[in-house]
Amino acid sequence: MRDVAKRAGVAMSSVSRVLSGHPDVSPKMRQIVMAAVEELEYRPDMLAQGLRRGKTFSVGFTVSDISNPVLAQAVTGAERRFREAGYSLLLTNSEGDPALDLQHISLLLSRRVDGLLLSLADENHPATIEALKATDVPVVLVDRDVPRGVRARSVAFDHASGMRAAATHLLELGHRNIAFITGGPARPERQRRGAVEEVLATIGASVAVHDGGFSVEQGRKATAEILASRPRPSAIIAGGNMLMQGALLTLRDAGISVGTEMSFVGCDNVAAAELHTPPIAIVQRDMWAIGAAAADLLLSDLAREDDAEDEPEGPPAPDVILPTEFVARPSCGPLR
Amino acid sequence: MRDVAKRAGVAMSSVSRVLSGHPDVSPKMRQIVMAAVEELEYRPDMLAQGLRRGKTFSVGFTVSDISNPVLAQAVTGAERRFREAGYSLLLTNSEGDPALDLQHISLLLSRRVDGLLLSLADENHPATIEALKATDVPVVLVDRDVPRGVRARSVAFDHASGMRAAATHLLELGHRNIAFITGGPARPERQRRGAVEEVLATIGASVAVHDGGFSVEQGRKATAEILASRPRPSAIIAGGNMLMQGALLTLRDAGISVGTEMSFVGCDNVAAAELHTPPIAIVQRDMWAIGAAAADLLLSDLAREDDAEDEPEGPPAPDVILPTEFVARPSCGPLR
Repeated sequence: MRDVAKRAGVAMSSVSRVLSGHPDVSPKMRQIVMAAVEELEYRPDMLAQGLRRGKTFSVGFTVSDISNPVLAQAVTGAERRFREAGYSLLLTNSEGDPALDLQHISLLLSRRVDGLLLSLADENHPATIEALKATDVPVVLVDRDVPRGVRARSVAFDHASGMRAAATHLLELGHRNIAFITGGPARPERQRRGAVEEVLATIGASVAVHDGGFSVEQGRKATAEILASRPRPSAIIAGGNMLMQGALLTLRDAGISVGTEMSFVGCDNVAAAELHTPPIAIVQRDMWAIGAAAADLLLSDLAREDDAEDEPEGPPAPDVILPTEFVARPSCGPLR
Repeated sequence: MRDVAKRAGVAMSSVSRVLSGHPDVSPKMRQIVMAAVEELEYRPDMLAQGLRRGKTFSVGFTVSDISNPVLAQAVTGAERRFREAGYSLLLTNSEGDPALDLQHISLLLSRRVDGLLLSLADENHPATIEALKATDVPVVLVDRDVPRGVRARSVAFDHASGMRAAATHLLELGHRNIAFITGGPARPERQRRGAVEEVLATIGASVAVHDGGFSVEQGRKATAEILASRPRPSAIIAGGNMLMQGALLTLRDAGISVGTEMSFVGCDNVAAAELHTPPIAIVQRDMWAIGAAAADLLLSDLAREDDAEDEPEGPPAPDVILPTEFVARPSCGPLR
């Protein structure tokens, strides 16, 4: 520790305060000391220290599906904020399985993370709700609604506005028979589906919903069903980027010309949408921003905890809602 | 613990042995007990237990870049194997930064993981090598060479064979002026570049190498450079799936017809390659398989550790090499 103090050019007491998680340490001091810790490869026994002091400067993020490229952007956005504040991020991957979410929350809590970011597979999973009610670490839900009775905050997208614009665009092009591919029970899917149904209800039409898992394979399967249905829909909305990729593969294999024979709207500005011939209309969102906003919210809760003895607890910062945006592209054409 | 034993239908002593990491426990018993632990939401204080017993049934995986979709496949492949064996996986994300790799290795070791999977940004980073020399937990490198002096094993792809086939295919189509886009100093990039240079050397040609980061943005930048160079190359090989996506975006923006004006080879069978018009020739590999193979190797090391007192240590299982394969597609055409 003496070497760390020397390298950082600070007092031994400062090193001790940083490493013990003392609340009265500036972010800058923490950065200076941790940089010296890094350079010298000094590894305090954080496990033992965690037991003594109750703080580990690590945060857990349960990711519902790490193979979804846009979730990786959210992770990166969150991680940079945590790093700047001197926190490390431990990730787990649930593959859309609520039972694994629960197991990973237990794992992270048993490793004494100071807080949790949760992108749950299903925010209404009863055992997960009970586990969240029982924990006393700060929790921020990422694009999920806060379940009743759980003390947590949330950062979420307004999926409805982008999806309403997409459905309205298809109506304006003359489409009346529209299929919607979705998967999973969580907030984004609920909002997207609700928005499409609401817009179609204005003309007395309903939407053919194909609901299953959240994979490329599910996108393929649902699209094959749509192509076989009669009367065949003239437009497809894929409510997720992996569903979109599967749907486009099946349309390509079936020789369907996108934009003329079948109009198409997808989600998220992934390369497969932008590079497609013709380019695919999408509902897009800033995943990096939601990760950063979720980290900021958790960090503000962690700072509040630190200050708890010094000042009365103020009202929590408001939860954050981020916009989504419909981008019209040639994959949507007039009804023939 | 009594409730867990009752729910699992096993003796208290069995629960105790599973939770304390006793070596003489069958994987099946571990699964039965852990399922009951899960159902009852029983959370033994693993942190304190880790200190007492020295085993946590968790494994760390430092991922070099979580936004690379194929690395997410490797994570999923590894995670399923670990789960079957009763281990949980903690992930960290380094964004290609060797200093963050080092920080994350320290973090995971301080959390007492039983073993490490490493997909390092740079396997020759001196401080990382020193940290690996100092640790005594089993380590498996994922598609990285084992640095000199480090006790670790590795699972890797034979990138050279697939890339040699790709370069040979371009030569057979008449191409002589070939540009190669790469990024990062690790094993995959070294092998891919070496293979292309070797094939071109057989006809006395050299390859124009554009080396930078590993992002979509870098793929765009390198492709703009290639299009501006004179004499302009007639073929591009992108040595990574994100570089490929950036390159294809820039070719599209420049109005270059892929397969006629510019032949193109990419890496990994991502949707953006398969859906492209024309479909993109690729060097492909089974990322799921490398994750699973790395997990199997680490699990065999962990089992060996458990048995260390019972039987003499045998020779380590051989390291694993997995194939890569070139898939010819219409993005490669004859030199005009």
